[in-house]
Parts: sequence; structure tokens; C-alpha cells
Amino acid sequence: MNKRMGNQTVAFQSEVRIFSTACVAGKKEGQGPLGKYFDVVMEDAEWGEKTWEKTESKMQRSALIRAVEKGSVEVKDINYIFAGDLLNQCISSSFGLLDFGVPFMGVYGACSTMAETIGLSAMAIDGGFADCAAAVTSSHFCTAERQYRNPLEYGNQRTPTAQWTVTGAGAAILSNKGDGPFVTHFTSGRIVDMGISDANNMGAAMAPAAADTLDAHFRDTGRSPDFYDLIVSGDLGLVGKSALIDLMYEKGFLISKNYDDCGCMIFDTKRQDVHAGGSGCGCLAVTLCGFIMDAMKAGRLKNVLFMGTGALLSPTSSLQGGTIPSVAHAVALASERM
Amino acid sequence: MNKRMGNQTVAFQSEVRIFSTACVAGKKEGQGPLGKYFDVVMEDAEWGEKTWEKTESKMQRSALIRAVEKGSVEVKDINYIFAGDLLNQCISSSFGLLDFGVPFMGVYGACSTMAETIGLSAMAIDGGFADCAAAVTSSHFCTAERQYRNPLEYGNQRTPTAQWTVTGAGAAILSNKGDGPFVTHFTSGRIVDMGISDANNMGAAMAPAAADTLDAHFRDTGRSPDFYDLIVSGDLGLVGKSALIDLMYEKGFLISKNYDDCGCMIFDTKRQDVHAGGSGCGCLAVTLCGFIMDAMKAGRLKNVLFMGTGALLSPTSSLQGGTIPSVAHAVALASERM
Repeated sequence: MNKRMGNQTVAFQSEVRIFSTACVAGKKEGQGPLGKYFDVVMEDAEWGEKTWEKTESKMQRSALIRAVEKGSVEVKDINYIFAGDLLNQCISSSFGLLDFGVPFMGVYGACSTMAETIGLSAMAIDGGFADCAAAVTSSHFCTAERQYRNPLEYGNQRTPTAQWTVTGAGAAILSNKGDGPFVTHFTSGRIVDMGISDANNMGAAMAPAAADTLDAHFRDTGRSPDFYDLIVSGDLGLVGKSALIDLMYEKGFLISKNYDDCGCMIFDTKRQDVHAGGSGCGCLAVTLCGFIMDAMKAGRLKNVLFMGTGALLSPTSSLQGGTIPSVAHAVALASERM
Repeated sequence: MNKRMGNQTVAFQSEVRIFSTACVAGKKEGQGPLGKYFDVVMEDAEWGEKTWEKTESKMQRSALIRAVEKGSVEVKDINYIFAGDLLNQCISSSFGLLDFGVPFMGVYGACSTMAETIGLSAMAIDGGFADCAAAVTSSHFCTAERQYRNPLEYGNQRTPTAQWTVTGAGAAILSNKGDGPFVTHFTSGRIVDMGISDANNMGAAMAPAAADTLDAHFRDTGRSPDFYDLIVSGDLGLVGKSALIDLMYEKGFLISKNYDDCGCMIFDTKRQDVHAGGSGCGCLAVTLCGFIMDAMKAGRLKNVLFMGTGALLSPTSSLQGGTIPSVAHAVALASERM
């Protein structure tokens, strides 16, 4: 059976559900507006580990263990783990998830990872390849800052367009049975590169990719923005959010009424000194696995379109004068199947 | 329909074919035993680009363009590109494949990438999500060496167990119609970590993961090693190949008759000064897209099991004293469907 709708979207035919989620967040994130929705808030950046990289691995492991416990599933019933992160060679995932003994599919989508892993998990289930699959990702301010920018001790000044990498990990367990919102559509994005090369302005670099994917989603499904109670992007921040609203308006879609960005939601951007807002794989992950899932399960949100946006640059490509290719993947959730 | 066989294997129900492949290889690889099977052999390590990273991107782009041309498909008919590589943030793929305008699924499987991307492409097709999908990967001696080890100018001495990163890119286009061998099974691997931490002995680190996946494949499918004309691993090299034969013997499987490793096949290990053989994502990619596809299309090989093996370490994890978690994914090919 062909499940394609248009060029970039697939519609799932079976009841693929997000059965259980859990998230671990940093102290600063815990103090933000979404703090009460996080399963675990770390007391400090180390969380008992000797290096921040090991902390980030522990965050992924803890998020998945917590999701397993909350869903009362057994690890052996998870057929695949789809996971990735921002660190070179995705070591948060490989070290964090090695003890589970579950077939491991490494993914690299930069900050689009939570949407890509949930989309792939849903494809695995709807395609008959899995009964249950887990999507896991993370980011950590300290590991990302020192890998992508400068040693933390350097204490350099940040530009107004810079974003603050969220310390957080999220795990979602998808299943073909049980409770939880349905994953109904997956719109996968193309790489878009509009020539922006300022690595301190990721929001502007990623907004065109986000607009390309949103546009594809509405065209492919025939839905309008009004269909959704909430359209949410992962980590465009204040600059990218504003750019996306404008770009979508140019394409003929008014999204400002029901659109928000996790990078703007997770921090009180006026008080928490995060400049243009949050970023990182963990930003969408903890917002989805915490706040959004809570609101869907409680009936406050019925139809949600969440979109992860990833900037596919590296420090090497930036040093070589490269631009910032970006990608966005979107997943539609519904509390009831039509 | 449930397509699972045992714990780690799925059996494809429809006719998923590797429709067209192409590969680009480096000069040294072109001088090796498989040289005549490569579509393009580069005249030097730069191939007209200013940085080796840009060369590697160009190799991926060229391999996919060549595969498109050889298969007489149109780029717009490719529904997904699954791709990844060894560079930080997988920039060979993101920069190399950005011009195609095809939904892009970034993958990180280290040197298992060719098997993971072909497995995921086959799942997308068999699951009804795609009619056509491309799997692409690459590695480049110069980019890998300076990222993982030392600046090339440093000219350090290599240990006897060290492997030589293959300069090569491969692209495989899978389709639900047309000619080419069938992709029949995908056995996805678990992360295995036996505590080895010597980053100059990847073969030994990866062999246990390879054994775990091969064992799973034989258990899940009920097949014995004799079923295959060729069982081939990606880049275990001389050390890892020998270790895998021993590990499989301990598990009760005699594989030495029809098993080989691309890292041992691609170079004349006695004459080409590559120590323990070839490695890198490109090693399996060019061997599969060149030699193996040629042999299957000509009828010299009928049933092939190819397995990518990935060492999921990073320079950071090694500097922090970390071990080398590894993973292996295996894909079964058949020239005729049973």
C-alpha cells in the first residue's frame, strides 16, 4: 500500500501511538516556564559524572529508563532505538544507550533529531517492522558550547542573535498499541541553504528550511494552519520564529495565531539571559516529551504539528567559510484518529 | 503485516531491489585489486577542490549523480536520501547532497553507514513510504586522518593493527521496480562494547559487534553460513577478520569458507602499505557498489550477506578514556527471489 501524500509526506495507516515519554532537563531549564513538566531536573551540570559528555549520555539513558518505567513496557519489547545528538560521532547516544541491548539506529539530524527519530520510529511500526520503537535525543549546554564555540572558561560575549543550548534529553516510546496520541503524518524535509554563514544566527539559517517543510506539509495534506491547535518548531528562537512567520506569510499561510517555538517557550527570554532563546536537540525533545504530551493527554491540545529544525554545519565547515545547510522534519500528532 | 523474524531481523515482503549503484574511489584504491570495478577513480586527493572536506562532499554528489544516470532514473523520483559519513556533523553528506532537493534523512552509523542506509531505504520502500530511495556514504583518508588522529603533515608512525581509511563514496538507488538484486532481509545490530579502548585497533573493537549481528542473523533466519556465496564485512581488516572467524567458531558457525572483509579485499595488504587493511564508510560502499553489484548482476554471486561494522567512538571519548562501543548491521541480497 502506498502511503505517500504529495512529495514529502507519508500518512500512517495503522494506529501508531506515542505510548510513553520522559525527559531530563538542566537546572536553568527547570527554572523556566516549562519546568513543572519535566520528569527530572538535574541539580547541576555534572549530575555526578566526571565529564559533561558522560553527563549527557547519562541523561539519554535516564530519560529512556524513565519512559520505560512510566509506560510499564519491558526493554526487550523495544525493537529499535532511533537516536542521535549533537556531539561529534553522536557519542551521547552510543555511550548512553549501549546497555539496553536493543537494535540501534544512529541518526544525525542536528536539532531536527527528535522529529527525525519519531518519524523513523513511526515508519518502522507502520511498515510492520516493529511493534515498539524508541526515539531518543539530547543536548547539553556545556558539551555543545565547547565543541561548537569556545571553551566555557573563555567566557566570551554572545551576540544578540545567539541562542542558548538547552540541557535536556527526551525519550519517546512509540507502539502499535496502548494509549497516547497518534502519529498520523510525517513530512520529511529537504536540505535548504540560503547562503547564511553566521554560526551565531542559527534561527535565520534554519527558518527557510522550516518554511519549506511547513509549506510541503500543508500542500501535501491539504490542511491549513488552522487545522492545528499548536504548530511548534524546535529551536528557531526569537529571530527564526519571526522569520518563519514572515516566510510563511509570503507563501500565503498565516501561522502566527497558533504557532510557537520551543526555543521561545522553554526559557523566559526576558529574564533568563538566553538572548534569542533556546536551541539544541534537547529543546524540542523536552518540550515535546514534557509539556506537549501532558497537554495532549489532558485534552488541552488535540492536533499538534511539531517540527524539528537542524543546522547541518560543523565547526570545520564554518572555519572553511561554508554556509549553513539546514533541514526540518515535521510530525503530525492527533489525540483522536479520524 | 508483521515482518519480524526473531529479535533483530526483518524480512521484506515486496520486491525491493538495488536498482542502480555507482562509486567514486581514490587513486590508491584504484590501484588495488578492485580498481577496475569503480566508476570513477580520482586522479588525486583534492579532485579540484580547495579542502579535502569539500572533495569528500563532491565524491558523494558525484556518486549519486552517476547512480542516477546509470539507472536512468530522475532525481525527482527519489523519495528519500538516507546518508551519513564519518566527519563531525556528517558534513560530507549535508554539503554533498544539498543540491538534490530530495527529503534527506541523516544517519550516523560510523562505518556501518552503508548497511544502515540500505536497510532503512529498503524499510521505507517495503513499508509503502517510498517507491525509490537512495543510500549514500563516503570516507576520505585525509579528512578522517586529521579529524580522528593527527594532522597529515605530522607523519606519525602507524601501529601494525592500524587500518587505512578508504577514500571512496558509494551511492545505491533502491526501488520497488526495475532490475537488480533483491534486498531480502535486514538484521540490525545492538551496540556491543567489550571494553577495548585502543583507537588504533578498530578491528578488534568491532569484531564482537559483527559476531553478535551475524549470530542474530543466522538464528533469526534459520540460515547457515553455507546459504551465502559470500558473507562480507565492511572494514574489520586483517585483525578483525581473523577475530570474527574465531568468535563465530565459538558460537558454532564455520564462516571461513565463504567469508571475506572489504578492508582486506580493497587493498593488496602485502604491497600497498596499509597495515591491517582498509577502513571507513567508503570501504564497504565502494566494494558493494562496485565489485559485489557487478558480480551479482553477472551471476557470479547469487546470495550475499553484507555487513557494515561501525566503531561509535569519538576523539573526545577516547581522550576521556572511553572504550569503543561498536555496532554492525547486515543486509541479505539475492539475485532471485525465492
